[in-house]
Amino acid sequence: MHVLVNAAISADGKLSSRRREQIAISGPEDFDRVDRVRADSDAVMVGVGTVLADDPSLTLDAPERRERRIESGKSANPARVVADSRARTPTDARVLDDEATTYVLVADAAPAERVAALRSAGAEIVRAGEDRVALPAALEQLEAAGIDRLMVEGGGELIFSLFEDGLVDELSVFVGPKLIGGRDAPTLADGEGFVEEFPALTLEDVERLDDGVVLTWIA
Amino acid sequence: MHVLVNAAISADGKLSSRRREQIAISGPEDFDRVDRVRADSDAVMVGVGTVLADDPSLTLDAPERRERRIESGKSANPARVVADSRARTPTDARVLDDEATTYVLVADAAPAERVAALRSAGAEIVRAGEDRVALPAALEQLEAAGIDRLMVEGGGELIFSLFEDGLVDELSVFVGPKLIGGRDAPTLADGEGFVEEFPALTLEDVERLDDGVVLTWIA
Repeated sequence: MHVLVNAAISADGKLSSRRREQIAISGPEDFDRVDRVRADSDAVMVGVGTVLADDPSLTLDAPERRERRIESGKSANPARVVADSRARTPTDARVLDDEATTYVLVADAAPAERVAALRSAGAEIVRAGEDRVALPAALEQLEAAGIDRLMVEGGGELIFSLFEDGLVDELSVFVGPKLIGGRDAPTLADGEGFVEEFPALTLEDVERLDDGVVLTWIA
Repeated sequence: MHVLVNAAISADGKLSSRRREQIAISGPEDFDRVDRVRADSDAVMVGVGTVLADDPSLTLDAPERRERRIESGKSANPARVVADSRARTPTDARVLDDEATTYVLVADAAPAERVAALRSAGAEIVRAGEDRVALPAALEQLEAAGIDRLMVEGGGELIFSLFEDGLVDELSVFVGPKLIGGRDAPTLADGEGFVEEFPALTLEDVERLDDGVVLTWIA
């Protein structure tokens, strides 16, 4: 499985302010780039924090991209994946609408009634790990379900966990023309953080887009 | 006064790990670039957190740059400035060696004996603000002392404060090929963070250097 992490950050590395409100960091050119990468993916993944904060749909914007997928025998939209150890995804979340298949990755610690509610709301439940989702095992199950290209759109906790487990192949970051600041504002990679061995990246591409720049790193 | 902030961050926007240990993010090409910018500055400023964590000397590496400054009637090294509300700079800190003039910016709340100790150790004391250094007033005093080009090398608390006070003219950021992670790791701009009006930047230049890229933003 190829795992591509994609995110937009401020010039100081933040995904949003300490209030966790969505902030327009990129612009139309980057939105279009993201939509194109989504269209080329088998599934688009976020952490439950992103679902709770932003309620994204994770579907394609451009109708012609949906049509092209259908013409090549795929679903109109890529599948959606939520990493959600405790099954906290609201049943009325937009990721659970009928626009695409949605996998919710839960741990054994997820309350049974929450898991049942998500299943009733149409989610495909993938169970891996005791207290927290075991991402390597969960991604193996997704791969067995036919997901070869996985795009990850945040947030910072999920992105750090994926790096911690050595699961990231590629990191695309739009760096935008804003300064957000804040020691408590979410960053591209949060979690505990590395303290000794830091994942080394290779800068593959630098592309100016909108009023910022997209940095593509190979992990 | 022209205020240029310069820093090296990981691909995820961190200045160092949560342990606040110095991490090699850039390489020889960027070190040389930083030395050149230092040589072109009248003073190099850091926050006391950086002094306590890294004990930098903030002097020039290249002897020929010192010689060139002397030839043009300047001091061998640019002056050094520490933003240090409570006068916590150790008297044996490298910024207090004899290599350059050093200004320590303190607030009224700084203990008198600490201020006296720093003065005995050779520091020029600049007093502004009650509880915390009032940066606009302190920078005015520095300007009156002949500092027209001020380079700021961190940390994230000082950088945020300077943006908060609208004092930054230019931001140069080396983004390096490492992933540090950590919700408690220091970032390029910490502090309280902005929540509504975010300083807008203009991307002036993008330059690949070492294994990363230098982004130059105009504030």
